[in-house]
This record gives sequence, C-alpha cells and structure tokens, in this order.
Amino acid sequence: MLEELFLRNAIDAFLAEDLGATGDLTSAAIFGPHEMARAEFVAQESMIAAGMARVAAQVFMRVNPSISFTAVEDGQMVSAGESMLTLAGPVIDLLKAERVALNLGQRLSGIATLTRRFVDQVRPLPVAIVDTRKTTPGLRVLEKYAVRVGGGRNHRFSLSDGVMIKDNHLAAAGSIARAVFLVRAAIPHTLRIEVEADTLSQVQDCLDCGVDIILLDNVDCATLRQAVEMAKGRALLEASGGIRLDNVRQVAETGVDLISIGALTHSAPSCDISMRIFC
Amino acid sequence: MLEELFLRNAIDAFLAEDLGATGDLTSAAIFGPHEMARAEFVAQESMIAAGMARVAAQVFMRVNPSISFTAVEDGQMVSAGESMLTLAGPVIDLLKAERVALNLGQRLSGIATLTRRFVDQVRPLPVAIVDTRKTTPGLRVLEKYAVRVGGGRNHRFSLSDGVMIKDNHLAAAGSIARAVFLVRAAIPHTLRIEVEADTLSQVQDCLDCGVDIILLDNVDCATLRQAVEMAKGRALLEASGGIRLDNVRQVAETGVDLISIGALTHSAPSCDISMRIFC
Amino acid sequence: MLEELFLRNAIDAFLAEDLGATGDLTSAAIFGPHEMARAEFVAQESMIAAGMARVAAQVFMRVNPSISFTAVEDGQMVSAGESMLTLAGPVIDLLKAERVALNLGQRLSGIATLTRRFVDQVRPLPVAIVDTRKTTPGLRVLEKYAVRVGGGRNHRFSLSDGVMIKDNHLAAAGSIARAVFLVRAAIPHTLRIEVEADTLSQVQDCLDCGVDIILLDNVDCATLRQAVEMAKGRALLEASGGIRLDNVRQVAETGVDLISIGALTHSAPSCDISMRIFC
Amino acid sequence: MLEELFLRNAIDAFLAEDLGATGDLTSAAIFGPHEMARAEFVAQESMIAAGMARVAAQVFMRVNPSISFTAVEDGQMVSAGESMLTLAGPVIDLLKAERVALNLGQRLSGIATLTRRFVDQVRPLPVAIVDTRKTTPGLRVLEKYAVRVGGGRNHRFSLSDGVMIKDNHLAAAGSIARAVFLVRAAIPHTLRIEVEADTLSQVQDCLDCGVDIILLDNVDCATLRQAVEMAKGRALLEASGGIRLDNVRQVAETGVDLISIGALTHSAPSCDISMRIFC
Amino acid sequence: MLEELFLRNAIDAFLAEDLGATGDLTSAAIFGPHEMARAEFVAQESMIAAGMARVAAQVFMRVNPSISFTAVEDGQMVSAGESMLTLAGPVIDLLKAERVALNLGQRLSGIATLTRRFVDQVRPLPVAIVDTRKTTPGLRVLEKYAVRVGGGRNHRFSLSDGVMIKDNHLAAAGSIARAVFLVRAAIPHTLRIEVEADTLSQVQDCLDCGVDIILLDNVDCATLRQAVEMAKGRALLEASGGIRLDNVRQVAETGVDLISIGALTHSAPSCDISMRIFC
Amino acid sequence: MLEELFLRNAIDAFLAEDLGATGDLTSAAIFGPHEMARAEFVAQESMIAAGMARVAAQVFMRVNPSISFTAVEDGQMVSAGESMLTLAGPVIDLLKAERVALNLGQRLSGIATLTRRFVDQVRPLPVAIVDTRKTTPGLRVLEKYAVRVGGGRNHRFSLSDGVMIKDNHLAAAGSIARAVFLVRAAIPHTLRIEVEADTLSQVQDCLDCGVDIILLDNVDCATLRQAVEMAKGRALLEASGGIRLDNVRQVAETGVDLISIGALTHSAPSCDISMRIFC
Repeated sequence: MLEELFLRNAIDAFLAEDLGATGDLTSAAIFGPHEMARAEFVAQESMIAAGMARVAAQVFMRVNPSISFTAVEDGQMVSAGESMLTLAGPVIDLLKAERVALNLGQRLSGIATLTRRFVDQVRPLPVAIVDTRKTTPGLRVLEKYAVRVGGGRNHRFSLSDGVMIKDNHLAAAGSIARAVFLVRAAIPHTLRIEVEADTLSQVQDCLDCGVDIILLDNVDCATLRQAVEMAKGRALLEASGGIRLDNVRQVAETGVDLISIGALTHSAPSCDISMRIFC
Repeated sequence: MLEELFLRNAIDAFLAEDLGATGDLTSAAIFGPHEMARAEFVAQESMIAAGMARVAAQVFMRVNPSISFTAVEDGQMVSAGESMLTLAGPVIDLLKAERVALNLGQRLSGIATLTRRFVDQVRPLPVAIVDTRKTTPGLRVLEKYAVRVGGGRNHRFSLSDGVMIKDNHLAAAGSIARAVFLVRAAIPHTLRIEVEADTLSQVQDCLDCGVDIILLDNVDCATLRQAVEMAKGRALLEASGGIRLDNVRQVAETGVDLISIGALTHSAPSCDISMRIFC
Repeated sequence: MLEELFLRNAIDAFLAEDLGATGDLTSAAIFGPHEMARAEFVAQESMIAAGMARVAAQVFMRVNPSISFTAVEDGQMVSAGESMLTLAGPVIDLLKAERVALNLGQRLSGIATLTRRFVDQVRPLPVAIVDTRKTTPGLRVLEKYAVRVGGGRNHRFSLSDGVMIKDNHLAAAGSIARAVFLVRAAIPHTLRIEVEADTLSQVQDCLDCGVDIILLDNVDCATLRQAVEMAKGRALLEASGGIRLDNVRQVAETGVDLISIGALTHSAPSCDISMRIFC
Repeated sequence: MLEELFLRNAIDAFLAEDLGATGDLTSAAIFGPHEMARAEFVAQESMIAAGMARVAAQVFMRVNPSISFTAVEDGQMVSAGESMLTLAGPVIDLLKAERVALNLGQRLSGIATLTRRFVDQVRPLPVAIVDTRKTTPGLRVLEKYAVRVGGGRNHRFSLSDGVMIKDNHLAAAGSIARAVFLVRAAIPHTLRIEVEADTLSQVQDCLDCGVDIILLDNVDCATLRQAVEMAKGRALLEASGGIRLDNVRQVAETGVDLISIGALTHSAPSCDISMRIFC
Repeated sequence: MLEELFLRNAIDAFLAEDLGATGDLTSAAIFGPHEMARAEFVAQESMIAAGMARVAAQVFMRVNPSISFTAVEDGQMVSAGESMLTLAGPVIDLLKAERVALNLGQRLSGIATLTRRFVDQVRPLPVAIVDTRKTTPGLRVLEKYAVRVGGGRNHRFSLSDGVMIKDNHLAAAGSIARAVFLVRAAIPHTLRIEVEADTLSQVQDCLDCGVDIILLDNVDCATLRQAVEMAKGRALLEASGGIRLDNVRQVAETGVDLISIGALTHSAPSCDISMRIFC
Repeated sequence: MLEELFLRNAIDAFLAEDLGATGDLTSAAIFGPHEMARAEFVAQESMIAAGMARVAAQVFMRVNPSISFTAVEDGQMVSAGESMLTLAGPVIDLLKAERVALNLGQRLSGIATLTRRFVDQVRPLPVAIVDTRKTTPGLRVLEKYAVRVGGGRNHRFSLSDGVMIKDNHLAAAGSIARAVFLVRAAIPHTLRIEVEADTLSQVQDCLDCGVDIILLDNVDCATLRQAVEMAKGRALLEASGGIRLDNVRQVAETGVDLISIGALTHSAPSCDISMRIFC
C-alpha cells in the first residue's frame, strides 16, 4: 500500500531539498565517484523499526540504483546498538542520501514505536488504535503506513474517502437525520458515514438513522460505556480526545471499537538512529 | 525569506493530499457555496505563535482568495484561550483548508516555542541557538523559518550551501589540512568551511589552516572551554550533541559561539491549536 | 466536489495540448489583442447540460480571467438551437479556448444525457444508477461529476477508496469469509466491503459474514430477485453487466439497490454543441 | 511517433488517478508481493487492435518493469474470443494496472475500428480519411495514433502546427487574399495554409492566392465536384461535416483529397475487451 | 504567439533557480516588505529592444503582481542611455526579479539586434532571414520570438511540426522520390516537405516529386543561382551554412527565398542593459 | 556536482521542446525501430570539451538507455576534426537526441573554452577567474559547471547561498557597519558576507567591520592595488566590470584574489561541433 511509483516522486523532492542546486559540495571535493564503502543504520535506543527497506533504502536507490542493502523487517523491535539497515555502494552516494534517509527512518520508527506502546496497553481487548488526519503535510501516506507497522489501523486518508459529520454540519442541516440523509444521497455507496455525537441522545439519533460509525470526542468513560450498551453492535463506536498512554486502557475497557489518537502522528518523538560508514 | 511564489506550490500539494480526488464530501453535501462563516484559531496552551499570517492563512487563501483574515505576529507569546488567527469567508472553504492549516500552524508554533525555550535559557550570553538538517522532509524551509521566529538562527539549508568536513572526509583526505585544501579549491568563495573536530589537537589543526567554523560534537564542557581559549576568535566554535534544556546554559557558558540542536525540528511536540467556526 | 484548485491544472494541460508550442498561429496573424467579441455555445441537439459554468467557462477563464460569461445550470435540459453558454472577451482568447471547452462540454453533456435516460427508465423505483471505473484516463473526476449531474450516483473513485473482492481474491483467500476477514483487518474502518457473488450460495456466504455490498455481475433477473429476498436489506445489492436502456427497468424491478453501468462513461456519444462568435 | 519518454508521464498520471493515495487496498490485503500469475486481454467482439504493445502493455511495465508480455500487432483484426495481449508477473501488479490498461486499449481499439470502417468504405479511391481536433482532452496524441492504426491520416495536432483560416478570420481581414497574406507573413514557411470556403467563388479566391488546402464544410456533393474541377490539383480539397458511414463513399466519389471526420475520435464507442487472470 | 499561460511556468522555474531555497537573503535582512522604489532598465549600448513588456516585465509581475511598469515596444531601436523599462513597486521585489529579468531581456535583445542586422543587409530583396533549431535548450519559444521581433521569420519549432529529409534519410530510402513518398504518406497534410539537396541533380529530383522546400546547405552562389532558375517558383529555396553579415547580401542576390542562420540564436552576444533603482 | 537525478528532468524538458507532440516525423517515416547506426560528434574548431559524457551523452541515454558511448574527458583540448563523442544505437534514437545534445555540448564547450582563455591569461598568478549570476535562465548549474571545466571557479549559485551588499542596501541601512550587522544577524553562519565598495574609504569601512569579501566593480588598477595593500589578506578582494581578454592580466597583477566576469556565461560564442552518422 506504499505505491513505489509515487513514493519515488516524493523521495526525489526530498533529495532535491537536501541536495540544493549543486549537491554535496564537501564530499564531491574529496571522494572520487568510484570509492566504495559500507554503511550501517544503528539504533541508538530501543524502537519498533519502520520503513527501513521500503522507504530509507529507497532513498539510497534513487541516488544510485546500484547500492545494495539488507534491512530489518517492518514492525520488528530493535535494541540500542543493533543494526537496522546495511548498505554498500559508492561512498559519495551513501553520504548524499544519508540525511534524507535518516530523517524519514527516524520519524517513521518514532510513529511505529509510539503506536505499538498504545497497542500494547490495550491488548488483548477487541479495540483498534487508529490514527487521524493530524499528520505532517506531505507525509500522510508514509506516516499512516508507520501506524500500521506499529499495529494500529488507519482512519480515512482524506476528506474524500470518508465522511465525518460534525457539529457545524448538524447545525446547518438542522438534525442528525437530515444531515445523514443529505450526505448519504451525495456520496459513493462504498463509504460509511460517521457522525460526531456529544450526548447519549445524539447517539440514539445516530442509531435511529443507521449511522455506521459514531465518534465520541472528549466523552467520559461512564458515558462511553452507556453508548456501547445502547449501540449493541449496530454501529462502530470511536472514542477520541485526551487519550494518553496512562488512560487508554481505561477507555478501551468501556467496550468502544476504536480509539483514535492524533498524537500518534503529530507528536511522536523521532527515534534516534545514526549512520556509521566504513570506507 | 519565505518565498510566496514557491510556498504556493507546497500548499497546493498539501491540500491535494488532504482533499483527495473529490474534496470535502461531507461539507459539500450540506453547505451551499455561498454560506458565510467566521472562524478562529484558538490556542489551547501557551506558545510562541509561528506562521499564522504567512503560512496558515495562506492555506485558506489558496482555497479561496476572497477569505479575509487577521493574525497574531510571528514570535508573539500567546496564552491558552487566546485567538491566533481569525478568518471570514464561505464556510465550505474554511472547512476545506482547516486541517492543513492547523497541521502546519501547530508544527511551526511547536518548533518556535521549543526554540524560544532554549534561547531563553542562554540569555544574555553571546551565543546563538541554531538548527540542523534534521528537519521533516519537504518542510525544511518552513521549519527553519519557525526556528528564526523562535529566536534561533539557521545552519546551512542544504548540502550545497555550506561545507561540513567530517571524520570520513578527513580519513579519506589524510589530514585536516589536505581536506580543507581540496574543499577550498572546489567551492564558491562565498561559503565558509566548517570542520568537525574531536580533539583539541584537531582544533589546533583547524586553526592552523584557517578553518572558518569548528564543530565540536559530544565534547565535554571543559574541553569546549579549552577550545574557546585556543581559538581566540579566529574561528567560530559550534557545540552540538546531547544538548537539552537542562544543560544548554552550561554549554553556553563555555564561550562557544553557536549551539546546534537537532531536536528543535525533529522532536518539537506540536502545539495544541483548535479551530472554532461560527456559521 | 469539483475542486477548482486542481481543475485548473487539468485545464492548463488540456490547453497546452491544443495550443502547442506557439499558440493559435492563425488568429494571432489576424486579430489584435484588443478586438472584442461575443461568443455563444449553441446546442445542436436536445441534451442535459453538464459543466458549462464549472468546466467549459473555466477553460476560457484560464486563457483570460477577464472573459465574462453566463451559463445554463448543470442538469438542465436544453433543446436544439438553445444557447448554453455566452461569453464576452477578446476574440483571440475566445478562439484560443474554443476547442478545449467544446471538447469537454460535449463529452460531459453526453455522459449526463445518457445517465438521465437510464435514470428516467427506472423512475420512481428506489434504485440508483451508478457509474464504474471505466472512465477516460485523466477525466475520471469530471466524468463522474457528469454522472451526478445526470442524476446518477458514483461508485468508488479509485482502488484506494473502496474495496471490491472478486473471484481471484476469493480463490486466493480460500473462502468469502477468509477474504472478508483479511480485507476488514487491513482497511480503514470508514470503507464498506463489497464482494462479487456469482451464485446464491455465495450471496448467503456474504450475508453471513456481514459484507456491506454484494455485486451480482451478469446474473439473470430471477436470481437477482431471489438475492433481494435473501438479503432482506442486510446488504446493498448491486447489479451489473449487459445493462441497456431497454432492459434496465426489468433489472430495477428485481429490487436491487444499485445498477452500475460502464457505458455511462465509456460509450456515451458526445453531444453536438457548436460555438458561434460575433466579432 | 508515440514518444515513450512522454507517454510514461501520461501513464503515471492515469495510474495515480486509479490507484488513489494508497493503491489497491483489496488486493494488498489478500495477495503477497511474490504470487505470480498470467493474464490475458480477450476481445469480446471483433475489432481492429490498437495500442496493445505500445500503450496497454506499457501501463503494466510502469507498475512493474519485470512484467513480460506478447501482444497482437497494431492494426490487426481480431475476433471475439481471441487473445490480444498476454502478460505474466506478480498478480498484485497485474491487478493494479488492469483497469487503466483496459480503459486505454478499449478506447484506442474503438477509434481504430471505426476509422477502418470509414477507410474500407472509400477503398480504393484516392482519398484520405482524416481526424480533427475533436479529441479527448489529454489523449490527443494517443487518439490520433489510433486513427493512423485504423488506416486514417492525421490533421494538425494543435493550433500551432497548422493554419486554418475560418469565416471570422476572413471577416476581420476583409478578404481571403488579405487573410492569406497576413498569415503567410507570420508563420513558419514549413506550414501549409488552409482556408475554409463556403462558396465556389471563395474557392476561386483561394486558388487565386495560392492557398494550399481548401476546407469545404457541410457542402453538397455537386458543389464538391465543381470545386474539384476548379482546383485541378492546384490545392488539396478537404470535405467535412455530416459525414457518416452511409454517405462517406458518395463524398469520396466527388474527387476530394481528404475527408475529415470528428466522430472518429469524439464518438467512437469503446471496444469490449476483458482481462482474464490465471493465478 | 507567446502564450502567457505557459510563459508563467518558465518564469517560475527561472526565478526558483535564482532565488534558491530561501530567496534574496541580503535584501530581506535590510529592506522591509513595504519600502517602495522605482527602477529602470537602461540600455548601455544601441540595440533592438525585445521582450521588455512581454517577458522581462512579466518576471517582476510573477514576483509581485502589484508592480507597475511601462516598456518600449518590441522591435524599437534604443540608444545607449535610453530607458527601456520603468518599474515601480516594493524594492525587495524589484531586487528579487532583477537578475532573471535582465538575463532574459539582454539575451532576447541580443538576438533581435543581430537578426535586424542581417535583415538590414538584404533589404529590400524578397528573401527571408530565418532561424534554426540551434536555440538554447529551454528557451526556444522565447528566442524564436526575438527573431521575429528583429524582422526574421521562424523555421519549424520542433521535429514534429516540420519535415526535413536529409542525406541519411535519402540513403536509407534509396532515392528522393521514395523518401518523399514515405514521408508524405505518414505526416499531416498540413505540413510542407523540405529536402536537403547537395547537387543540382538532386534539386531536379526534388522538383520532379513536388517537394515544397529545398534546402541548399553550404552551396556556392553560382549553384544557388542555377537552382533558382531550375525551380522557377515551383519550390521554395532555402540557403544555409556559413552565412555571415559580410556575405549574406551576396547569397540573397542569388534569388533564394530563405536564408537560415543558426548564429541568430546560438551566437548572438547579449546586449548590455543595466537596472538602476531609486529607493 | 552535476546531480544526475535532477539533470534528467532538465533533459526531458529539453527533449520535449525539440520533439514536440509527435516526435521526429521525418525519421519515423523512413527508419524502422531496429536499424542501428554509429554516430560521432566532431569538433569543427579547436576548443575545450565540456559536458560530452555527463551532459550530451545523457541526452541520448534518456531517449534510449541502450545507446552506448565513449567521450573525451571534460577539460581536454580538442582540435578541429577530432572526435569528441562516439555513439552506437538505433538510428532513429540517435537522430531524435542529436539537436538537443549538440545545442548543449556546443554551449558548454563554448563557455569552457572562453574560461580557459581567461585562465591562461592570468597564469600563474594567485587569482581565480570566477563567474556571475549572468547565466542563461534554466541552465545555471550546467553553465557554472562548464566554467569549472574551463578552470574557473564559481561565485554564488543563487540569492540564497551568498550575500552581496550593494549601494542600495548601504543607502537603506545608512552605513556599511549597519548593513553588515543586519545581514550577519539574519543569515546562516556558514555564509560569508560580500560588500560592493566604490571607494577606498568604503574598503576601509569593510575591513573595519570584518567583511569577508570586498567587490570592487569598475575600479581602476591603481585603486585596486591600494585596496590590496589596505586589506593585507584580511578580506578577499574581487574585481569586476569591463574585464576583457586584453586587460585581465593587468587586473590580475594588482594582487586581487578574484576576477569575476559575466561574459564567461552571457557572451561565450557556441563552439562548432557537428554530428556525423554512419548507418
């Protein structure tokens, strides 16, 4: 689900940003084009690896398709000091791709690692940890990929492949029933309809008009539990808002189907990975 | 230094990512094109505002150039509950741009806020807090802009507008003198030469061959102090590695000229901003 | 749901194709830049108008934003001889945009007109006429827009905003249940799952594992009726294959929810519209 | 004359349209990247094949360059049930490219087939069946290629590689002679000049000032015959307007050199081709 | 014939090249965004002005559409010290566009000036001075525009809007007649056919098979004269090769119709223009 | 320092310009896709070769990656009649790339040759011949590469990787000291600061505030000599303005460090190279 055809264009743009008009001036002055080296991405802390083969290594391949590599699997836990990606090729090309590949690998592993921590907190409850649209502009497909690597699931990718009826929509439409009617008439039948409900009475309205997914944002656990009882499986219940590692289990135990967490992508700290090079 | 001409292209790409093939299906089903609204970005925590007028508001302008706005100044401290950006225009267009504008504004304010905290720690010492190339791929110009908003200064933007001679280069060249000679002969005379030194003897070699900037990475404060004494202003000294809010002052007091910190961009948590809309 | 921001890029590419390297050589040799004219799109046959204001007029606006226009509403029936779009501006710019605007307007009106004919055939049965992915490469968003103008509804836009499990997927997965299980675990929860069923026993399997939509391709009406009875509203039933204007009513009367027709987009003849110009 | 270098960009755009942000969700959930299959394009009706090797197969190659194929020659007649293109490669990639490749192949074969029918009607008269600029925006080069495959010839590709003086130009210039003089002075000497004439007296004017091609649009056969006699080979005569399969022979027998038909590209129904896959 | 729609993209690319990642660092540090200035392009030598309003001024407009300007007409002779373009707007934007606008204006005026010198040499003989495809990659449309400004005419723009049969083609086809037959059958009837002839016997072959244009490359004047006599107006005769200001008149007097000169574009020295700014 | 990744995009654009919509019509009509040939770039005059392998040959490779080649080294002097690049591949592809490859090779060799002539004039004085931003829009990286091939050095590539304080900046800032202070505070510490000085008193001001490079534009040799004495190596001195082959030595002998010459790129005549093809 990471389309290589399009990933290529993104990587080219990232390389262009880091190489500037004239490339790696320092290395070009010192290394010839044929000096070979081996390089290694080494974890500086424990983390869930994400995107080593499918993203970081591809950065090197765009610079020089003859660079060879082996990488740890996506989703594998690595410890400080372990090698995550080994590369061999012209030293000048390894240095050229280094920074972009690290920047991507560190961020994606950061997201996968944070996602895994949330997933571990709720195991084995039948609840999914899901992401949001609070992703880094330009990196949504990659960041949502990292969420899946970490064991999470994806919410909609864009405003056009999912429907979310919020308070402003409800106010304009006049009622949940009318908003759902309007939306259902307009969208492809392949999409589910999600409505944000603030109260149990709104939950009931949602159930009454066949809403597929009900979002309960910043709602306390007691209310979540009541909503679960009301829904009886007729709609998916999604909790969000203020979810942290120390309270996610409590939310999960209410019986909701999904817990969506913006912090998975907007606030996951980058993992620390460094590249060692052996000329 | 944020070129509007090129920012536009980036914003279009970010909007395309969030709008998908067919745009905001939910809102299109409910709002007509002429229903007007007012919207407001409200700080949910205290922060240094960055990019409200020059970035976030521009996202709305790309969706509909008739949207009007007023914004807090870049670099201004705002408190929880304060308005940072107010907008007026068609509700359908305000909703279309909301997520991209927030994602950018939150990230940039996060970087400015973290930068300011470092800058405040070292005030009024004559030392600059500077960023690195550890930025989010695709957002470097924006993130480095946020560092400046926070009171920091920028390191080189790419591999082609600055020179950094590291251990691999030194090993290949044989000596600092030879590496500097090779690089100096190859690059535009408008660029300074920076060399990473691990020891005081390397610092001496750098000074001997007229290096402009000496990077001391993961070097203890005692050694930094000695380097400052050796240099006597003949080269800029830059410290990096393991700099945190709780030790940056100590490093600054050694007398180095610059302290570079990757975390400014790769690990600044997004600030919490939400958009309220009044139809 | 026609995002102007992105439509612009498509129109620019279409104009580039028709203008070539040096533009309208003939008109440039004869008309000065300031000779004004009025132009009119005139229907040469009866049709449902589609895309006059939102597409055809936009082509003229890209060539020269000062061109003014009035247009018939999307979805309006026009008769031979009626004016569909009137324009005023520099004659040289009207001629420059003419062919691209006509080519688009004729095609979109053709699709809307054919869709309307299908829709009229099944009125007032509670069944939707829907399109497919058999669209012209590069024009999918526009062609699906024309289907909606004609009163039809849209199926998924791409392989990533809808799920369709077909015979090859079933064979590989081993069973409907297993295929649905695998897909459900992998996709955003905002998407429905559609399965293509060839037999009533497969329909039963689909119902048993909670499939949202069942596609019955090239299935006779008696079987469709039985499937409708089995489903009892637990899944949407979609019929497709060999649907023509002369048999669509019969299919609709089986009680299926949706009838999808590739011909709406791949075989709708262009409507005949011509541009008259008054210098 | 189908430049592969540029066809690639068009195919990438078409694939992006059909794959969306995240590609073929259904197949990605079920097939591994290494499951191989064979696939076959099978004609569902008799047709002139166009673009199998040079277009449809290239779509598969862009998705995965390791896909191998054999294809029928362009211009070959195939019957219902015959194989037109056989492919071998990873099943997941075959499914990814299927729809775009079929959409292109069906349209191009449709155009070639219709063109051939017109060409067959006028055989062996010394007259060319030619296309127009009434092509699908974005597909002109491909559609004009299909016309040649069907035995037709191409009119100008764009407004800048051919000259066509029409009534508005004549009105503005004051006379045919003046219009031709103005155009001749402005354009590359490598281009011929074509003028649309409505009457025999205009034909005479064209001949008098050395026009290269005279377009007679919606002119009856008797008049065409007279024009042929007047021209005596001094200019090419092109007939257009209202040409159908049942009257094209009659027009051809008047002795005109070219018959241009917009329907070749704007109204050719897609041919029916389906892809069978053998996992 | 300079399409503004596409010129814009070229100008953006040129500005991106000159502005780099972060724009005019020097001016941004010193000028505020609202300091206004007047600027003037002043000729430093006598020249034919080309592209002041349509190209150079457009560069300023892309940087800031509020910049106003007045410009000398294309084709006007200006003397050293004369003003060619006056501008008013924010000083920061005037400086940003200066270099790109000058680089373009100097080059185009250089080409127009050289072209005019050739044109003046052959006046009033009925012969056209024409350009070639020996243009600067990326600037062909602009450079050919400058040739027209200087009074020259354009040869074909690309390999696809003109036909030129050279010795390799003749060798492969076996004879001029066969080469012309093959080409005529393949190309749009709107294009003329040009053949390069080395000898008078080849000229005769060309005339015999109705070639439209005969290119005589590096042929002496006596032979040119004989070719003119043989052709008697049945084909255009184009001379090329080794044409200089001091021999062009002699060539023109042979009676050929066209003289093509690569140096017009590949070796015209830039004219000297400087920008004065009044803050 | 010629990034292949990005050179490719430039070459594709140049080929698109020369191939037009439908490619080389002439050759496509005559040669089959499998007819092979050998081709050779032959110097028609003595020159310094530039860009044969890294630029011209890459044009052929983009058209067909199977074309093989051998090329003279960059910087090598070749005489009239010598082969500079030999190629082997399909004749149709050799002809397709010919013009673009020649246009680039001739221009780059022209720049390298002119640069070498200046460099030879000042040998062995310790002074660098440097280029300017007076390059052809779109070709800056290539043209500056050719300057290096010729033995010159590069000035800044864009407004964002170098700083140049000129008279307008000084006027606005009030003094050299203030301008330097403002700029130094705003720019990356990796960049040097250059100031244009018109008088020796300004040179002194520059030295007093630690300017890195002083530009002396259109200053006579006596003054240059005095500036050299004043500077005593504390700043680099750059002379520019009115430098010709016949006075460059005199300027060099003043002791300045750098001589910058716009003519290297804006007025170098193309070298004459032709392609011979052996079918």
